[in-house]
This record gives sequence, structure tokens and C-alpha cells, in this order.
Amino acid sequence: MTEPQLRALLEKVRAGSLSADDALAELHHMPFEDLGFAKVDHHRALRHGMPEVVMGHGKTIGEVEAIAKSLLERSPNLLITRADETMAATVKALDSTAEYFPRSRTIRVWGDRQVIGKSKIAIVCAGTSDIPVAEEAQITAEVMGNEIDTIFDVGVAGIHRLLSNRARLNEARVIICCAGMEGALPSAVGGMVSVPVIAVPTSVGYGASFHGLAALLGMLNSCASNVTVVNIDNGFGAAYFATLINRI
Amino acid sequence: MTEPQLRALLEKVRAGSLSADDALAELHHMPFEDLGFAKVDHHRALRHGMPEVVMGHGKTIGEVEAIAKSLLERSPNLLITRADETMAATVKALDSTAEYFPRSRTIRVWGDRQVIGKSKIAIVCAGTSDIPVAEEAQITAEVMGNEIDTIFDVGVAGIHRLLSNRARLNEARVIICCAGMEGALPSAVGGMVSVPVIAVPTSVGYGASFHGLAALLGMLNSCASNVTVVNIDNGFGAAYFATLINRI
Amino acid sequence: MTEPQLRALLEKVRAGSLSADDALAELHHMPFEDLGFAKVDHHRALRHGMPEVVMGHGKTIGEVEAIAKSLLERSPNLLITRADETMAATVKALDSTAEYFPRSRTIRVWGDRQVIGKSKIAIVCAGTSDIPVAEEAQITAEVMGNEIDTIFDVGVAGIHRLLSNRARLNEARVIICCAGMEGALPSAVGGMVSVPVIAVPTSVGYGASFHGLAALLGMLNSCASNVTVVNIDNGFGAAYFATLINRI
Amino acid sequence: MTEPQLRALLEKVRAGSLSADDALAELHHMPFEDLGFAKVDHHRALRHGMPEVVMGHGKTIGEVEAIAKSLLERSPNLLITRADETMAATVKALDSTAEYFPRSRTIRVWGDRQVIGKSKIAIVCAGTSDIPVAEEAQITAEVMGNEIDTIFDVGVAGIHRLLSNRARLNEARVIICCAGMEGALPSAVGGMVSVPVIAVPTSVGYGASFHGLAALLGMLNSCASNVTVVNIDNGFGAAYFATLINRI
Amino acid sequence: MTEPQLRALLEKVRAGSLSADDALAELHHMPFEDLGFAKVDHHRALRHGMPEVVMGHGKTIGEVEAIAKSLLERSPNLLITRADETMAATVKALDSTAEYFPRSRTIRVWGDRQVIGKSKIAIVCAGTSDIPVAEEAQITAEVMGNEIDTIFDVGVAGIHRLLSNRARLNEARVIICCAGMEGALPSAVGGMVSVPVIAVPTSVGYGASFHGLAALLGMLNSCASNVTVVNIDNGFGAAYFATLINRI
Amino acid sequence: MTEPQLRALLEKVRAGSLSADDALAELHHMPFEDLGFAKVDHHRALRHGMPEVVMGHGKTIGEVEAIAKSLLERSPNLLITRADETMAATVKALDSTAEYFPRSRTIRVWGDRQVIGKSKIAIVCAGTSDIPVAEEAQITAEVMGNEIDTIFDVGVAGIHRLLSNRARLNEARVIICCAGMEGALPSAVGGMVSVPVIAVPTSVGYGASFHGLAALLGMLNSCASNVTVVNIDNGFGAAYFATLINRI
Amino acid sequence: MTEPQLRALLEKVRAGSLSADDALAELHHMPFEDLGFAKVDHHRALRHGMPEVVMGHGKTIGEVEAIAKSLLERSPNLLITRADETMAATVKALDSTAEYFPRSRTIRVWGDRQVIGKSKIAIVCAGTSDIPVAEEAQITAEVMGNEIDTIFDVGVAGIHRLLSNRARLNEARVIICCAGMEGALPSAVGGMVSVPVIAVPTSVGYGASFHGLAALLGMLNSCASNVTVVNIDNGFGAAYFATLINRI
Amino acid sequence: MTEPQLRALLEKVRAGSLSADDALAELHHMPFEDLGFAKVDHHRALRHGMPEVVMGHGKTIGEVEAIAKSLLERSPNLLITRADETMAATVKALDSTAEYFPRSRTIRVWGDRQVIGKSKIAIVCAGTSDIPVAEEAQITAEVMGNEIDTIFDVGVAGIHRLLSNRARLNEARVIICCAGMEGALPSAVGGMVSVPVIAVPTSVGYGASFHGLAALLGMLNSCASNVTVVNIDNGFGAAYFATLINRI
Repeated sequence: MTEPQLRALLEKVRAGSLSADDALAELHHMPFEDLGFAKVDHHRALRHGMPEVVMGHGKTIGEVEAIAKSLLERSPNLLITRADETMAATVKALDSTAEYFPRSRTIRVWGDRQVIGKSKIAIVCAGTSDIPVAEEAQITAEVMGNEIDTIFDVGVAGIHRLLSNRARLNEARVIICCAGMEGALPSAVGGMVSVPVIAVPTSVGYGASFHGLAALLGMLNSCASNVTVVNIDNGFGAAYFATLINRI
Repeated sequence: MTEPQLRALLEKVRAGSLSADDALAELHHMPFEDLGFAKVDHHRALRHGMPEVVMGHGKTIGEVEAIAKSLLERSPNLLITRADETMAATVKALDSTAEYFPRSRTIRVWGDRQVIGKSKIAIVCAGTSDIPVAEEAQITAEVMGNEIDTIFDVGVAGIHRLLSNRARLNEARVIICCAGMEGALPSAVGGMVSVPVIAVPTSVGYGASFHGLAALLGMLNSCASNVTVVNIDNGFGAAYFATLINRI
Repeated sequence: MTEPQLRALLEKVRAGSLSADDALAELHHMPFEDLGFAKVDHHRALRHGMPEVVMGHGKTIGEVEAIAKSLLERSPNLLITRADETMAATVKALDSTAEYFPRSRTIRVWGDRQVIGKSKIAIVCAGTSDIPVAEEAQITAEVMGNEIDTIFDVGVAGIHRLLSNRARLNEARVIICCAGMEGALPSAVGGMVSVPVIAVPTSVGYGASFHGLAALLGMLNSCASNVTVVNIDNGFGAAYFATLINRI
Repeated sequence: MTEPQLRALLEKVRAGSLSADDALAELHHMPFEDLGFAKVDHHRALRHGMPEVVMGHGKTIGEVEAIAKSLLERSPNLLITRADETMAATVKALDSTAEYFPRSRTIRVWGDRQVIGKSKIAIVCAGTSDIPVAEEAQITAEVMGNEIDTIFDVGVAGIHRLLSNRARLNEARVIICCAGMEGALPSAVGGMVSVPVIAVPTSVGYGASFHGLAALLGMLNSCASNVTVVNIDNGFGAAYFATLINRI
Repeated sequence: MTEPQLRALLEKVRAGSLSADDALAELHHMPFEDLGFAKVDHHRALRHGMPEVVMGHGKTIGEVEAIAKSLLERSPNLLITRADETMAATVKALDSTAEYFPRSRTIRVWGDRQVIGKSKIAIVCAGTSDIPVAEEAQITAEVMGNEIDTIFDVGVAGIHRLLSNRARLNEARVIICCAGMEGALPSAVGGMVSVPVIAVPTSVGYGASFHGLAALLGMLNSCASNVTVVNIDNGFGAAYFATLINRI
Repeated sequence: MTEPQLRALLEKVRAGSLSADDALAELHHMPFEDLGFAKVDHHRALRHGMPEVVMGHGKTIGEVEAIAKSLLERSPNLLITRADETMAATVKALDSTAEYFPRSRTIRVWGDRQVIGKSKIAIVCAGTSDIPVAEEAQITAEVMGNEIDTIFDVGVAGIHRLLSNRARLNEARVIICCAGMEGALPSAVGGMVSVPVIAVPTSVGYGASFHGLAALLGMLNSCASNVTVVNIDNGFGAAYFATLINRI
Repeated sequence: MTEPQLRALLEKVRAGSLSADDALAELHHMPFEDLGFAKVDHHRALRHGMPEVVMGHGKTIGEVEAIAKSLLERSPNLLITRADETMAATVKALDSTAEYFPRSRTIRVWGDRQVIGKSKIAIVCAGTSDIPVAEEAQITAEVMGNEIDTIFDVGVAGIHRLLSNRARLNEARVIICCAGMEGALPSAVGGMVSVPVIAVPTSVGYGASFHGLAALLGMLNSCASNVTVVNIDNGFGAAYFATLINRI
Repeated sequence: MTEPQLRALLEKVRAGSLSADDALAELHHMPFEDLGFAKVDHHRALRHGMPEVVMGHGKTIGEVEAIAKSLLERSPNLLITRADETMAATVKALDSTAEYFPRSRTIRVWGDRQVIGKSKIAIVCAGTSDIPVAEEAQITAEVMGNEIDTIFDVGVAGIHRLLSNRARLNEARVIICCAGMEGALPSAVGGMVSVPVIAVPTSVGYGASFHGLAALLGMLNSCASNVTVVNIDNGFGAAYFATLINRI
């Protein structure tokens, strides 16, 4: 509820067209709907101008179904991250256009394919093992109305591969950069471009990668100033943030 | 060196107006200048359209002086972060307009005060102890040509203080959010606005704050999707990234 | 054995109605019973006025059966936490009124449903994924004689949901607050109420949540002073502690 | 602002005695006062019925002075934790009754010594090195209107010392238990009493104590169910929480 | 090879009864036998006067069989720790007296049951979940010729259970103390007795127990001076060390 | 592209035998081939004079097949690490000489068995459980053209076994040393020889080995100066590095 | 209070020579004396047959003086660990025979120099930097009545130095082994002898030694079974434990 | 003592020209000299063909003096790392040619400046703050007889600086690569060259660099296969290892 809305409501009270009790009730009427186990907040997505997104992990099939049903009634687009095949089958039963991407474990209903972003988002990843996270970012960014350019398998140890993509990198308005192991890619990319770079550490690696901790720490300590970081494997979050920048 | 420049150079060789050796030399002429201990890269800042920035910590007085001298010859603005009072005196001797901010340990020469940013950057912090980091962000963002709105001491435990600033928060194009201890502020701010939020964990706290680790982890796990994170106490980096967004 | 009991015993010795050897034996008679593998201490629960509780994890079916049998002979109420379906079947064979809650993996025999607590305990959680832990707290608090108010899915990133429940929160005598990821909810709740808040970090999340460590550290560093913390996923412990407060 | 207050305000608007704009202004008038660097929230303490508390660490002398001055104008009691001797001198200049406790680095103005707590709070510590933290708890609990019983130097390795204090422990309504090193004391105390125990890990120890981490982890894993934990060295927080329980 | 043996050998060379080449060969004759994948050192056990011990984990069935066969040819006793049921079946095929203990995953051939230890070893554990580790210690200590007294389920939160066993504890020459969670038991036991206590942290617990880390740190920081520590879940190592003390 | 090659290309442009556009095209022609999901860089291996190596983990069967096919067309040798049996079957279908080593999970095609290394590489490991990692090193070093001497099961606790191999150790030009648990072997080996020692921590162990962290830290702190370290379980990397030294 | 004493007391009550109240008082009379800030437990040391020991760190000069005075009245021997020079001067003023060892920061009063230990304790250390910890062990073990053999600077990287001391090592009844950095020495020593080895990790080192953590983890994972571990830098604890073994 | 020497000695005994006792004595004569607090091993350096090196940190001035004196009598070159100015003055008093390098805290006596290395060692560092570690490597490598090429301030965020030095990098036989913060430099360098790269993490940085841990983990996870790692800030160790490679 914004200030103008509040002012309008108070004016109605002042004008006598709304009782104090009704005003109170209205003030209490929160913009979310109660499903019992989860308060689906239709207004949050609207507020941000984003499609609805649900994290599948940790929810039962029944919960996913109920939430998906509730959301699909109001929105042509839906994204469910960290979902499994059973959830995918359930959503496909609700909407036959639903797609499932097993690599990134994502379910997508993409009814409204209008491009809203003002320019391109480049999604870069260091090795083939980072592709699941990059794919989550790609699917998210697409359903949020962005044009995407993917540049995969351009790690720092083969720096010429990365350099040969300098032009494509500089055409993007914002870059998402996924890397596991030492997580050095965002620093190199950040030094090559003048646009914002969102670094996504991936849990790829073994031993002293400690499930993405090495990449995370590396990215937080990046010597390139145009780099910020999201959680390990959080391709969704990076795409969300990049979308915000691409809509400015 | 961009592709058009390379093509032009090759055309000159083709036309005979440039020898192969001279072309080779030109290709090798790197856009940085060698001071012996540090290669000052005047082009990097230009490339990003940013003023020059130096990190004082870990440099000798002599190094700071030489770098500052070299940079001030080419640029009206200069920022030295993590500097001490002796460095400040040295820079003031080079340029009497230099300011020193002891709280954030920052030296600034601010000759060109043109506003470049397209809208406001809000800088929010949770407690008074977070102000040094917030100040580093503010000084950086100002010298980079942004209009700033500072909203200090609005921690999550007094949520009404934060809510009373909702309007100001929503007027900003991008928000920098500094918090130590549990680092919960960016989640709350992120949920209140639809603009990008850059979270800066601070090393404020004691015991199980582990010098900012608790805040860092909290921010990386933020349930608000419009939040990214920079290194602990990295007010400079947050301001740099916010500036990039504010110039789009 | 309290001081008055000891004095009484000594008086009996003094009066000659008890020999030194018998007194010695009595002093040695410890209030627990030996099942060989586990000393079931019927007096501990009595001492605290609590029903019997067993942790199922790490015990064999046989052990669970023997302990449950021994306890049910003396008490109408029994709680087994971190139990699996086989244990549940075993206990149901002993007492057909036993319930099993698969989400929180809890077995409950609730013969005596008298309310002992003086007011309500509110149980709040941040997201649907935190419900298993919240449910463990709820089942525990119920069997210990408390009236419960559950307020689920009110995370910090949608702060208005939380604020719309302020009245219900302030009606509780003590609040249990379960949250994973950044663990910011207890700080926000703590700032809204003046009653004690018991924070339960949950292992919900991924990447840098490190199985609840991020939430745990966040809660320990809470800027709200009316917050204490129990172990990750320890819904039982929070309910036990809340019960103690609710009986004062 | 509570619901009745809001209703009253709306009624005034309805009755025409308050314009919509004035009502709006009032709704925006937050119950804190802006000192520029810190928003002193007089209402928060009132809301919780607690004296004002300030953390000295990380504030300049000037800030401490301004905040102390502002608070002392409204309240007879004031507590400043983690303060140094210079801060103490500054506060003594404002109020000659101010006391400074160097061991716990606490400043206290204790004008109103009314006892509000309904029973006693016992403060227990394991070794002499834990006394600074225990003292912070004691000074805090006293100024918050509690009667205190201190039982110091009763570590687990000399269990008979602890057992000889069983009666005193059981007379308390709530127990604060400070211990460093292995942090075992709260488990032992928790097993001896039926009242809530608030465990405070201290940073006492060396080597693998890791500045209180060992004690913190030990306490979080306590096998006694009536134990919750606050941050390392957080004697203040434990006393605050104990006070809440002692006022129920 | 001891100094007297070396001197004797040199004297034989001096006397001409041994050629330099033969002496050289003898000096090179190392007291182990090469099975290709593992050098079975029959002398090490003999040197320490201990039965042969093999760690099953990480070995193939074939390797376990070959090593067991080689060892059983020379020794009536054999212990295989961290073994599975298939390994047990393999060893039973070699020696029908072999026993398998599924709880502690131990295989034992106990042909020579002579008691060598000079007094008793007490094995104490805090909860039933610690029994697997305590059982590994018990089986190891038995096959190494010690008389054992087991005192299980005497955790610190029920301190009177522990105290009621003071006499039995003081009858032991050395005590093995297994505990998970907060690992407080060794401190309490250490304070009650004057004999050496070997603490074994167990990986029992959840959340902030971090697979035994909390117990390990607690034990290393024990305030009782008569406590040393072995690796998490290392019941075998504790029994080995206790055996050395019991043979002095 | 080296400087002489660049000079030659420019001379061709100068001479008119190459147009600027063709030169540009040539400069852009990067020495890798695009398979869509992974850029197979045939030149990198050639540049280092090494056979092609692929990490199987994290790749789909289809990707492994496509990459293997592409590589086998150009090279007689191929190594796939961290591969499973299905991948092995797929590669065997492409080349019937392919071998699979289940212990180290390695696939090898070894068509060209020429020895290139100038001397021997010794591979030492502490216990039988370290053999999988040592085997990965051995298979890698063999396919890269080195003669190998393997010395297994010579841990520090049986120091005479290690000492009896001093001569063999000193015959190697470089030593790979694999050890888990305390990771002490490289220090002992390093002190016995004057050649470079490459330490490989293995994830062997339990409890406080923390999946190889203890061994890793031990090796990084080695008091022997001729020791460097690679990632936990990285037998491949150690062999690669040793090969470089053995070719000098 | 032992069982016979309790029986005797009860008999006196039975016989009428002791009233119930006096018996009660006697039962409450705890064997420690209250100095206000620290309960000096004269009986604990007597119980273990050890001299009195005080940890200086964290105590004020006044406390050290009061405790030392109280202890010296009852005992000819006194040890104060982690003491500074001012504490030393204070104790020397109480007893002119007091010695101060600045390297290990130990104060010792050694009036009764009777040897109680049945054999020798060897104290081994890896490098000169480990000597402070080894010296704390030595001074402690001496004042506790043991004969000591010190073997310093015999690190694993120079294994022949260690081997040349095999005879001396085997003459000891128990060995204390101090090492920082990789902490490999106890494994090597443990493999050479058949007596108990007590490992003391030291905080010597830099970088990835993490203040002794590397050494601690290494020792806990020792592949030698006759090794147990005490806290980082805990020379005192190792000596105490070794003394217990040497008195058996 | 090698096998041929042992055979020769035994032959002398056999021939009667050496008594058994004298042979025994000779066998016991270890190649180190005992200074009481540190066994200076002249043979170790000789064995490796290296000058003598001492770590100053943790030694007293007297110890440094005694060791330096003993070493300088036998060797024209001496290196003392982690030394302070007082140690430098002491060594200069022993040998007036001694140099002190305050940045890297190194003392060097460089009497014999013969070049032994077969080619050049390149020392690369990422930023000016890494120079102290790089300088320790340079001074060490020089005194060990290597020709050095230093390439400083070529971080990954300005990748063109690094690329412009490709030729110099490829001229080296081995490369030492020092970097703090994210530690990405070795991966980039490793991908550009085909020679061994020794990575040295530096403790440069702040916040989540955790004193070099981020750089260390990054380097251990390097995607370039020709990279190994030494301890944080261990410029000496890297130079030592590089020297071994440069002498092959």
C-alpha cells in the first residue's frame, strides 16, 4: 500500500464515504492469500513486475500442485526451480505447455513470451559442469522477458577462448558469470568489460572446492570492481537481479 | 584495442604507410605505464568512465605518493581507500583540496563534481557501528558522480523505523545496504522495494559474528531475490557497482 | 533427594528406626531403572513436570520398543522425536492411540490432554520448508500441555505479512521462531514484541546456508535482545524451553 | 502504534477534528528521535519496560555523550556496555552517580533501584576467567530490577562444588550460566534444576577453544532440554532475556 | 633392531662367522612381508605385544581375505574394524570362530583369551547413541587382554546417575569415555577420579554437532587435567591406548 | 600465436599476398573447435605436448561420447578421469583398446606408448586406502610417457618400511606422495631425498580428517622445503605436474 | 567424601554422639575454601596427589597473589602457568625460591623435589619454535616428581635425527611429543616405540597452520595407535597426564 | 649413510681394521651438530646442494646469533627469513656483507654468487601488496643460484597486462606466481604457458579473504593442470622448489 493509496483511503474516511471500522479492515487486508501451509503473495511478483516463481525443493507434491494451480489462474508464466520429475508431471497435468529441464531441474510455463528487457544479458560459464547452473539462469532470464546470449566453456585456464568473445561480452547490458573450482572467471570477465557482472559460484569441483566455498570466496575477493556475488548454485537469483538491471 | 582499430592498423600496413615492425610495436604498446612497483592503468578507469581509485593499505608512503602524483596529472578526481593519516598528509601536499575522512579512512580529491548518475543511490545501514562502511560507499559514490540519499540506523529489530522510510527507498534507482551482526537488513529492504539491492556485510559485532562472516552468510542466503553481495566491509565495491547501474 | 528428605532420613537413624546400613542403602537407591542399554530416568521428567521424551534416531527398534513400553506403563503421554515409520508401527502396536507425523518424523501418545500452560505459545516460521521443524515444536508443545498459535510462512522479505500478525504475536506469552536461509525472522519478530523469543535455525537452504550454519550465526548475532537460540532443527528443545516459561 | 491508537486516530479523521494530511503526518511520525548518526528509540525500551542500553564499542566519545545525554533526560537508569574508561569519564561528567566496572567494561547509572522481577535470577560461572561476562550479566540484571544470586567458580571438573549449591540454584526462577573452554556447565546445571537456563559461552580459553566457538557448540548441543544459548560473551543479552522471564 | 643386536651382528662379522654381504643382507631384511598392495607388518604388533588389527573400510573383499589369511596363520587373535557383513562372511569362512558385531561393525577372532592387563578398564558412555563407539572400544580392549567394566548412559544432564557410579569408576586403572553432542562427560568423569581418562568424541548428534566436531572441541578444552582425546568415533584407538596403560 | 607467427602474417599483408580482411579472419581463427556444450581445445594439449584428458564427472554419457570421438580422431592416447562404468562401455565401443580401472575410476586409451620422460617418477602412498588416488596418478603418468616406480603402503608410523626404500626414492627424478589421515608422509619423504616431491592429500580417513582437510593442511605446513601440494584426491594433477618436471 | 566416611558419620548419629543437624552440617561442609572470586580446592590436588596449579592468564595480580598465598600455606610446591613478569614478581615476594621461566611463561615454587614417578618421561619436540610448549611440559612434569629426558629439534623432515634417538625414546615410560606446522612427529615417534605417546599440537607456524589447527588435526588422525592428543599449546596438560601414567 | 658406505665400513670391520665398537660409534655419528636448543644439520643443505636457511621467527636473538655463526663458518651464503631489524643488526655484526630487506623481512649473506640454475625463474605477482611475498621468493631464488625475471602487478582483472608478458613468461623454465584476494592469477598464467607454475597464496586482502584462505582454496582448485601450491605467504618454499626444477 503506497502513500497515495493511503491518502486516498483517508480522504474517503474524511468524506464520510468510509467508516473508521471499514478503513481499519481495509488497512488490515493484506495482499496475500492463505493456502494454509504457504501464503501465496500475488502482489509481490506484480510489484516487481516479475512472473511467479516457486522453489520446489522441500515442498510436497500436493503443495507444489496447489501453489502452481493458484498461480496459473492469475499468470501466464510460471517458474519452478529445484523441481523433480514427479513435480514436472504434476504441473504438466495442470498445463500441457509446461516444460521440464532435467539438467537444471526447472519447470517452466512460458505463455507470455514478450521481451521486456532493454538489451541482452550474457550468460558465461567456465566449464561444461557449470552448465546446470547457467541453464537455471538462462531459463529464468528468458521467462522474465530477456534476450540471452550464452557463452559456455570459456574458463580462465584457456584465456584466449574468453578473449575471442570480448565483442559479444561487451554487447550485453549485464553479464551473469557461473564458475566452480577456483571461481576466477568473473574477475577476468569483469576486467574485460565495463558492465555489471553477477558472479554465481557453482558447487562443481572436488576436494578443497568444499562444495563451492572456494569459488564463493574467490568471487567475493574479486579484484574487479564491477562484480557482485549471489549464493552458490543460485542461477535463479542472478537472473532475477540481471533482469532488474536490464529493465532500467 | 577494438576490432575496428585493428582493421585500420592492418589497412595502413596493407597500404604501405606502416611497416610490419612498426605495426608489431604498436600492437605491443600496452595502455599502461610502468612505475616499477605498480603498473598504473590509466585506460581501465577511462574504459569504465570512472575516476582513479587506489587502495592505500599495503602500500608504502612513497608508493602512494608516486601513484597519486601520476594519477592527478591526468584526472581531476582521485579516491584512496583504506588510507591512514600519513598518506592523507602526503596527498594533501600534492593537492590542497584533498579531504581525509578518518572514520572510513578515505582520501578524496573531488575536482570534477558533475553528476553523471541518472537517479539517486540510497545508502542504508543497520546501526551506528556500520557507518564507517556506509561512509566509504557514500564518498565513493559521490566522487563517481551520483546523488546520494543516506538512511542510517534502521535495523531490522526496529522494523517501524525502516518502514517509515519506504518512500525514500523506493525513490532510489539502486540501494546499498550495509549491516553487520545477523545481516538481516538487505532481506527486509529487498522485500520492500523493487530495485536492485547491493548488500555489504560489515565486520561489526563480536563473538559468533566472526568478523562479518555471520552477516556475509546471512546476506548470501537472503530470501529476497533482488539482493547481491560484495565482500565484507567493501563499501567501495558496492558504490562502484551501484554507479554502473545508476549510469545505465 | 532434597534437604528435608535427607534430614528426615537422618532423624530416623537418630531415632533408631533405621540402621546405618539401611540408611546407606537408601542413600544409594538412585531414582532410575536399568534396562541394560539405557537408564530410563522416570524421575527426571517428573522433576520437570514433563511427559517422557525419547529421541528415536540412533536407537534400534528393539530399544525403542523396550523404552516405550517401560515409559507407557507409568505415563499417559509419550513423545518420540526423529523416529521412522517402523518405530511408529512398533509404538502403535503398544498403544493404538499413538499418532505418527511423517513431516516432522514424530510419534506421539497423547492420553492426558490437560492444558497446563498459563497462556499461548506462538510458533512462527519463515517459509514452507521450515514447517517440519515448526511441526516438531508444535507437537512437543501440545503434548506438554500448551495452547498453540501457529503463524507460518511469514518471512522477512515480505515484511507486511509479518506485520499483519503483530496482534497475534503479542498475545503469546513466548514465541518460537523457526527460520532457515539467512535466519532473519527472530530479529524482526523480536523487535515487534516484548515477550521472549526462542529462535530455531533450520537446515533449510542450499549453498552458503551450510546446513543451517548461516541461520544459526545470524540468530546468535540478533540485534534484538529478547532472542535466545537452540540447536539447528531443534524444534523439540525450543518447545521444551517455551513450556517452562509458559508454566511460570 | 497499536490498533486502538490507530482506531482513535481514524475516528478523529472521521469526526473532522483531524485532516487527512495531519493524520498522514501523524502516521509518519515515528516514535524515535533523530540525532543524525543514530536514531535513539525511546519507545523501544518503554515498550519492553526496560531501561535504556547503549553499546559503547564502535561509537566515538562524542556519540556516546550525545546519546547518553538524550537518554538521561528521559530515564533515571542507563547502561552502557563494552565501554572504555574515557567513555566512563564522559558519562560521569553528565551524571556523577555513574559507576564504571572495568572488569566487564560497563557504565551504569542506577537512579531507580526498584525491584520489578518476581523472584531471583541466579548467575553461575565455571571459572574465575568467566567473571567479566558474568559481571556484565549481573550489572545488567540489577539495573533491570532483579534480585541476583551469584555462584561463581563451580566448574564441571569439580562437580561436588556445583552439587553443594543445588538448593540455591533451585531457588532461582531462571539461571544464567557462563562458561568458556568446553562449555559443559549449562548441561550439568540444566540437569540439576527444573527452571530455564540461559547459557552464555565465553571467549575464555586458548588453542582449540577458538575464542569461544568450542563452548558455543557445546552449549548448542546440550543434552539438557532446559537450555538455550546467546552469543559468545553476551552477558547483557542473557540478563535481558532472564529479566523478561523474571517479570512474567 | 636394537643396539645390542647390532653389536652382536658386528661381532660376528669381526669374528669372521658372518660375511659383510650376509651382514648387509641381514640388515636389509625388514620385518614385513609384501602382499603387493599392503605390507603386512607382523613385527609391529609383536613389538607392541598386541593382536593384529585391520581397518576394513576402503579395502576390497579380496584384500581383506588375503590380509586376514596371512595374519591368522601367525596369530590366534584378529580384529577387523569398520567392516561390513560381506567381510564378516569372508573371515568366518577362514575361521569359523570369527564373530561379527553389526552395531560397531567389528569382526573378531578371539582364540587366545588370556588376560594381560593388570587391572580393569572402565568404558563409560553418555547416551545409548554412543554405544556403537563404546562397543568398538570394548571389543578391542577385550581381544587385547583386558578386563572391562561398562557403564553406559550416564550423561552429564543426569549427573546423579554418574555420581552413583563413582566407586566403579575409581576401581578402574584407566577410563575410556565416549560422548557426542556437547562432549561434557569426560570433564565430569575426570573431576571425579584420579586415573587417566581417554575421551572419545562420537559423531552422534545433529545440527551444530557438526558430525562430532562440537564434542571434539569440548573434550580438547576440558577443564579436567587428566583427560586426553582421540579422533572422532575412534573407539579402537582409545582401547589401544588404554591397553598400553593397563599393561604398565 | 607466437610473435614470429604474427610477424610473418604481417609481412604477408605488407607484401600484398594477404588482404586485411583475410588477416583479420586468420587472427580471429581460434585454435579450438566448438561442440556446442564444450569447446574442445586440441591445441592446448599440443602446446603442452600432452595427450588429451577429459574429466568424466558432471558430463552426460552423450557429452563424453562426443568429446571422446572428437579427440580420438586426432590423438592415439586419451585419458578420462572420474568416469563410471557406463562411460567406459561407451568409450570401449569407440575404441576397443580402451581400458577401465574401477579403483581409480579411470578410462585410458594408450595407443602411443613411447617413453618421453627423461627419468623415473616414483609414486609413494601411505596406506592401501590411498591406492585409488595413487593409481590415478600412475595411469596418468604412464599415458603421458613416463616410467613409473610405485612404492605403496609405507606410512610414517612404520618408518623403517619407508627407510628401506630410500634407494628407490633417490633414483626418481620427481616423487608423487599420496597420503590421507595426518598427511605426514611427504614431510618424511621430502627429508629423505633431494628431488621435488608433489604431495597429494587423499580423502581417506574419518572423523577429524574432514574428508582430506587434515592431510591437506598438514602437507601445506610441511617442514620439508621440497614439497608442493595439489588438491585433495588430485592424482591426475600431480602426475601432470610431475610429467612436466620429468620432461625438462 | 567416601563411603566409609559416610558410614562412620552415620554410625555416630546412630550412637547419639552426633545430632542430625550436626551431621547435616558436616555433610554440607565442602572441602574447598571460598576466596570470594575463586573456590580454591585443596582437596582436588590431594586427591590426585598433585601439587597445586594455577592458570595465571585472565586473573588479576591481586587474585594471583591471594590464591598463591593460600596455596603456599599448605603446599611446598606451586606451579602458575601462562603467567607474566608482574605475577612472577608478586609470587617471588611471597616465596623467594620462586623461579620464572619467560619462554614458557611459567612460575614455579619447587620446595619438595622428591621423585615420585616410576620411570622417565621423554619430552620430544620438532623444532626450536616448539620449545616454549615443551618447556611448560618439562617444568610441570618436574614439579610433579618425574625424571625427564628432553630430545629437542628432531622433526620428521630430518628423520635420521629422530632415529638416532630411538634408544632414549624406548627407555621412557611415556613420551610427550610437541610439534607445530604439520604435526607429523607423534606419528613417527609412535611408530618407533611401544609406550604411550601424548601429542601436543603447538601454535607454531603461519598461513595454513591456522594457529595450530593443522597440527591438531594431523595428530588426531595419526596412523599410530599409541597416540592421544591434548589441546593446542597445552604442555601442562600433557605433563599432568604423563605423570598419572608414570605413577601407575 | 649410503649402502656403499655401509658396505665399506663393514668390510673394514671384517678386515680387522675397525673394531666393532668403533664401527658402532661411526654408525651413531650423526651428521648434525648439537647446539643444545637446535640441531644444525649441515648435511641436509649439502645433500640438497642448497645454502643454509634459518627461519628467524620464534627464535631469540641469541639463538639466531649462535646458528648464524655456526653456519657462516661453513658456508659463504646464508638466508634468514621472517627476521626483524634486531636480528639483522646481529648478523651484520657477524658478517658486514649481510643485507636486510625490510619489506620481506629477509637477511641475506650472499658471498658465492655463482649461477647454478640452468635457465630463468619468472616471479609473477598480482598486485603491489603481493610484493613482500614475491620479494622473499626472489631473494631466496637468487641466493640459491638462479637468474630471475620479475613481472609484478599483472592481475587477472587487467588481463591484457598479463598477456603482454606472454613471451617473457614462456622464456622461464619454471614460474612462481604470488597472488592474494581471489588467487586467480596462477590459473591464467598456467593456461598461457607449458612450464610448471608454483602458486603462492598471499595473506593480502580483507574480509572474506580470511588471511589468504580464499586465495589458497582458489589455487588448489585451479583448472590449469600445471599448477601446484605452497603455504600462504611461503615465498621461500616456492623459490626452493623452483630451484630444484631449475637445476634438473
